[in-house]
Amino acid sequence: MIAAIERSGKGAAGPLSPDMLRRMHGYWRAANYLSVGQIYLRANPLLDRPLEIGDVKTRLLGHWGTTPGLNLIYVHLNRLIVEHDLDMIAVIGPGHGGPGIVANTYLEGSYTETYPAIERSRGGMDRLFRQFSWPGGIPSHVAPETPGSIHEGGELGYSLAHAYGAAFDNPDLIVACVIGDGEAETGALAASWHSNKFLNPPRDGAVLPILHLNGFKIANPTVLARIGREELTELMHGYGHEPFFVTGDDPDIVHQSLAATLDTVLERIRAIQATARNGLPDNGRPRWPMIVLETPKGWTGPKVVDGKPVQGTWRAHQVPIADFTDPEHLRQLEQWLLSYRADELFDPSGKFREEYASLAPTGHRRMGSNPHANGGALLRPLALPDFRDHAVTVPEAGGVKAAATAVLGDFLRETMALNLDAANFRLFGPDETASNRLQAVYDVTGKAWMAETAAVDEHLDRNGRVMEVLSEHLCQGWLEGYLLTGRHGLFSCYEAFVHIVDSMLNQHAKWLKVSDGIPWRRPIASLNYLLTSHVWRQDHNGLSHQDPGFIDHVANKTAGVARIYLPPDANCLLSVADHCLRSRNYVNVIVAGKQPEWQWLGIDDAVRHCTAGAGVWNFASDAGEPDVVMACAGDVPTLETMAAVMLLRENIPNIRIRVVNVVDLMVLQPQSEHPHGLDDRAFEALFTVDRPVIFAFHGYPSLVHKLTYKRPNHANIHVRGFKEEGTTTTPFDMVVLNDLDRYRLALDAVERVPRLRHLIPNARAQYWTAIERHKLYIAEHGDDLPEINDWRWIR
Amino acid sequence: MIAAIERSGKGAAGPLSPDMLRRMHGYWRAANYLSVGQIYLRANPLLDRPLEIGDVKTRLLGHWGTTPGLNLIYVHLNRLIVEHDLDMIAVIGPGHGGPGIVANTYLEGSYTETYPAIERSRGGMDRLFRQFSWPGGIPSHVAPETPGSIHEGGELGYSLAHAYGAAFDNPDLIVACVIGDGEAETGALAASWHSNKFLNPPRDGAVLPILHLNGFKIANPTVLARIGREELTELMHGYGHEPFFVTGDDPDIVHQSLAATLDTVLERIRAIQATARNGLPDNGRPRWPMIVLETPKGWTGPKVVDGKPVQGTWRAHQVPIADFTDPEHLRQLEQWLLSYRADELFDPSGKFREEYASLAPTGHRRMGSNPHANGGALLRPLALPDFRDHAVTVPEAGGVKAAATAVLGDFLRETMALNLDAANFRLFGPDETASNRLQAVYDVTGKAWMAETAAVDEHLDRNGRVMEVLSEHLCQGWLEGYLLTGRHGLFSCYEAFVHIVDSMLNQHAKWLKVSDGIPWRRPIASLNYLLTSHVWRQDHNGLSHQDPGFIDHVANKTAGVARIYLPPDANCLLSVADHCLRSRNYVNVIVAGKQPEWQWLGIDDAVRHCTAGAGVWNFASDAGEPDVVMACAGDVPTLETMAAVMLLRENIPNIRIRVVNVVDLMVLQPQSEHPHGLDDRAFEALFTVDRPVIFAFHGYPSLVHKLTYKRPNHANIHVRGFKEEGTTTTPFDMVVLNDLDRYRLALDAVERVPRLRHLIPNARAQYWTAIERHKLYIAEHGDDLPEINDWRWIR
Repeated sequence: MIAAIERSGKGAAGPLSPDMLRRMHGYWRAANYLSVGQIYLRANPLLDRPLEIGDVKTRLLGHWGTTPGLNLIYVHLNRLIVEHDLDMIAVIGPGHGGPGIVANTYLEGSYTETYPAIERSRGGMDRLFRQFSWPGGIPSHVAPETPGSIHEGGELGYSLAHAYGAAFDNPDLIVACVIGDGEAETGALAASWHSNKFLNPPRDGAVLPILHLNGFKIANPTVLARIGREELTELMHGYGHEPFFVTGDDPDIVHQSLAATLDTVLERIRAIQATARNGLPDNGRPRWPMIVLETPKGWTGPKVVDGKPVQGTWRAHQVPIADFTDPEHLRQLEQWLLSYRADELFDPSGKFREEYASLAPTGHRRMGSNPHANGGALLRPLALPDFRDHAVTVPEAGGVKAAATAVLGDFLRETMALNLDAANFRLFGPDETASNRLQAVYDVTGKAWMAETAAVDEHLDRNGRVMEVLSEHLCQGWLEGYLLTGRHGLFSCYEAFVHIVDSMLNQHAKWLKVSDGIPWRRPIASLNYLLTSHVWRQDHNGLSHQDPGFIDHVANKTAGVARIYLPPDANCLLSVADHCLRSRNYVNVIVAGKQPEWQWLGIDDAVRHCTAGAGVWNFASDAGEPDVVMACAGDVPTLETMAAVMLLRENIPNIRIRVVNVVDLMVLQPQSEHPHGLDDRAFEALFTVDRPVIFAFHGYPSLVHKLTYKRPNHANIHVRGFKEEGTTTTPFDMVVLNDLDRYRLALDAVERVPRLRHLIPNARAQYWTAIERHKLYIAEHGDDLPEINDWRWIR
Repeated sequence: MIAAIERSGKGAAGPLSPDMLRRMHGYWRAANYLSVGQIYLRANPLLDRPLEIGDVKTRLLGHWGTTPGLNLIYVHLNRLIVEHDLDMIAVIGPGHGGPGIVANTYLEGSYTETYPAIERSRGGMDRLFRQFSWPGGIPSHVAPETPGSIHEGGELGYSLAHAYGAAFDNPDLIVACVIGDGEAETGALAASWHSNKFLNPPRDGAVLPILHLNGFKIANPTVLARIGREELTELMHGYGHEPFFVTGDDPDIVHQSLAATLDTVLERIRAIQATARNGLPDNGRPRWPMIVLETPKGWTGPKVVDGKPVQGTWRAHQVPIADFTDPEHLRQLEQWLLSYRADELFDPSGKFREEYASLAPTGHRRMGSNPHANGGALLRPLALPDFRDHAVTVPEAGGVKAAATAVLGDFLRETMALNLDAANFRLFGPDETASNRLQAVYDVTGKAWMAETAAVDEHLDRNGRVMEVLSEHLCQGWLEGYLLTGRHGLFSCYEAFVHIVDSMLNQHAKWLKVSDGIPWRRPIASLNYLLTSHVWRQDHNGLSHQDPGFIDHVANKTAGVARIYLPPDANCLLSVADHCLRSRNYVNVIVAGKQPEWQWLGIDDAVRHCTAGAGVWNFASDAGEPDVVMACAGDVPTLETMAAVMLLRENIPNIRIRVVNVVDLMVLQPQSEHPHGLDDRAFEALFTVDRPVIFAFHGYPSLVHKLTYKRPNHANIHVRGFKEEGTTTTPFDMVVLNDLDRYRLALDAVERVPRLRHLIPNARAQYWTAIERHKLYIAEHGDDLPEINDWRWIR
């Protein structure tokens, strides 16, 4: 069928009547005109008079190359939406083509409803053009400011994962996803095609990938445009898709071909959904359709500039004509603009003529007004069980052991159960949900899986709400798409490997920051990370798995967005998790171990402690001014600190110690830097103004210094943490290798309390004796001294 | 042919004679035995007496599941090497299977030559077993400690990119690359298959991907194992590969099938190379062979433990039998070990019997002794032109403009030219070499490209030495593989998007750190980044492209590895680049802009300045103790600082200013923390002990605070830098938005010099006037005030 369409010549048969073809082509011309206008013009929007150099912006910014293709797709999706009353959004991978999406939302009316100053008139068009890439105006990419978008697309690679995230649990939604052929070379995108093994046709919506093969990146051809149709077809088959090719540079032919193809793929999607939803015979995983749209880069733009080919080459990528000191360039731009015959499309007042405007969908069917793309508007709060019901009973501090994430797992199981009907909560993780001890959720839901199954598999379920795939990129991308369309989720990940999505986190944090300043963008659920299997208990995997730096990365994000929690025990983890799942518009990072560890706080104390963010642990502290503050953040550092306190008390009966535990890392920053920051008086009440502070920290020590550098007692804060020493060894040896062990912390305290100076020689001797004993024991037994693990904190 | 092999039954025809089959099977049993021994045993290595609980390690660590497959592949590659005298290395994607590679290098003798204490005897075997995952022993993964490895494999996804990097410019080398089917789900790996479009058969070696489809990850089936053979075949075709399937769980059949398949694929590889090298007719890009090896996870291990299936399931992933308080488990482990009939394979002294041992290659043909896997041993220094020949003439500071990276481009062109014959230098970048103004290299070499070409393409060349693909993962992975096999390179990248490879950088930095402590690992060329198109000049792309955080990430790496340079102008960039290209075993990050900017130092001054790492710029400073130190690091901050100094001098004639520029960021750290750190006296000589320091910084301000927190004058250091404010706006507005502009810096100085306190009200008024004027101008003109760009620094 495709071949037939391609063979057909001008005016050949196709689903579009001649009048419809004419009007759609007009609509496309209008979108292209408005796109060029945005890139170039600061005045004279309707070309009422000859173009002058003063009409052209001084700084020419924008990406023309991808834009006409995006405009074409938008116009054709509009037809499909109108004809079939579709609930559809578009994810625009080539987000650099900002002017195209702005133009289309303007033409359909969404833009003006969102930004009333940009009227659908001559004056509005003038402002529309001028604001683009203009200081104080709008960015050049599709961005949070763009109505209908859930995807920035400045950093390439995440469109398809976002599209799947949006489609999950939205059975009536179709997510059209335009993928640039440049973007398709990235790792994240290359992996994303396999997302179709995790989308369940009865429960989830459909994703329609449209690979826009315009052939070039900034300076090179794209790989997928140069492997031939046969190989590309096999690649798509291998990814589980049926490709439909639309190719050409003759608009009439491409219009008919694209329209016919869209009709076909919609039919396929509906057939797949009907089969799956109506109990028809199950043929296994469906082969979902996708479209390859092969049109020239910078289509309808200048063919040749300064004697060099532009249209259909990489030279069309950004601004095809520049340097308007050359009058020939100005003339060429004018010809280009005139070629769209805007006077046929807009009336003299600048209003889009009704014969074209009427092609657009109306109301929420317009992609620029679809509420799924402003997910906060659809957000329903998560139903949360009382986390106190899952608390560990702690008869006395250090009196009982529990695996924190397993306790959380019980809470998550109940959360999952409570929200099964609402279908708005999922867990995401790279094959590690059970390894991270959250497997209790499998009591109420399984792992999503549409591929083949075998008898030995466990918990695989087409309706599963746990998303496991060995790709942190997919976990993150799916979750982002899910959140941005108004749902909730949690990503549990090995701490070291969450760095794989550093750059995705950047982009999401930027999105949240910008959205916060856009009144019509409603708040969405926070992006919640549970980092477990953390640096201090990767002793079996070794150095490659030992890296606590993700919290450093997040701490660089804007204070309005970044939240970091280091709960010291299971009850604190419960309290923190409950808080995070209720929060909006944040990136919450929770770091918590999965190993059975000693517990410190009963649930009421845990709630009070986590609410304050940091506090003196009175049960382990002496009243009044201490000799030394033993501070800690993180579960393993807390354990070592408590053990150090015990050692100090045993050996120095009259020592006065204050134990301060920090759960919410951002309390360390001044209030001027972060809303969670303690005011200076509260900070001093914890850390004193002049006493030595021995701070045992989960991550790199410098992070504490960075957060506290403005604090009065900063010079006295002595931090121990990870210093990049690791290997496959025992858990206790890990803290020894990094000088975070109890013996070292105790010695640190003795060395820094002036009145204990006389004890230093003896303390050092004791320290070295303990370390030597440890080293000898592990070399002989391959495991830690029993006392390390049997230890109990005693007051 | 494959089908025929699969149909054949036991003892069916195949390339292996019955005796060869028996011996190879014995060799495999030996490797498996040694693998299980490493995971479990701390004594009784040859099972001379019944296994006792005391013989078993207390902490059982390791990954059994992937290991028998790795052992099988190793034994079969050995046969191929011996029969064809191949120069071959293996990259082991499932690096968790450490015991397998250790076992094989031990069996072939490489291990003992590298580590003489691990003799090929009973005692050696005892130590071999005990050291594995033992404190002070060896890590559980394939690691720098493992002979023959260039790949850790703890973090999954990078094996295939490393393999291609190793193969480039090594025409006689074959790189076998084992890819786990779990790893295959990652983004980096999914993109890596397309590397075959960048490998040139006459010039480069061959990569033989072996996808080990053992079906399961930690807890789930793998995607590629559950899409059926047809889809997997199409996927590989789509990636440009011809797959050959080897499937089964009967060792005899699999041995014959794998041997036959290896013969076939080697024949294919040689045919491809012969065609390309001997001027035979060019059929375009070859379809390279690859192997899909489908064998049970944990093959030859226990089938059922505690009533649950283990072999062939995810339960075989790590340690299949644990908890030896159950005596049945001990018996089962003993049976498992005995099943390999080690007494047939090793003589009573523990020596591997000659009839098996003789199957291994010898000397450098052994994969554990191949010098390519210890690249430093093959490293030849790069021939470098005199960078002074490319210097910008700077008649006076601020007297001339130059685009720093374009100047570097000239130097790189000469470097490329000088090393064309040695064929050991390449540039890597995601489609941005020209965008980053390094296009002068195209005078001497093109961009590697084996896919289709079109008339409009420029600089594509099968023999090109510039590697461009829109995947930072591939650029990084290829470069790592290239460096680890003893060559040189530079990765130029947009600053914001280099975060995509944060996690790869972590793993490479860890590799370098560990290698530094391994005497037989020879130093390799440093991993050099040029981060350009940086945060301050992404004004046209906006916030998504604005992120200077990569240097924070690198600053967390160990001081022995991390180097960060912020050259303020073109001549400093030349000096720094020359230094980096000569260095070994570092990660060098250079941040430099590509826009034409004012130049400050002549080449001799630049060399002196860069050698010192930081210095007073006397030409801009007053002699003696200053009122204020105006410090800067980075090209844009330096420009703004110089402009601020001019403003201050114009307005406050008697002000005493010292300008300090920092090129090598690590000089800020104390010497105790970093070898580049200035000693405290030198630091004080620059920054004073008590004067206010206004520090204009390229990145996040907190990085300077973090590096200087131990410095005496730290409390007086006031840092301006990126505070996450950005959008599409003018270049100068970017610095204004982040309070890094000249007006703000000048005001900062006035506000902090006590004797100028009386001037503060007036200075603030002037500041606001300037900012308002700027804002009004850009809102009206869409571009910066002419004076911003026309500015010249005057003393």
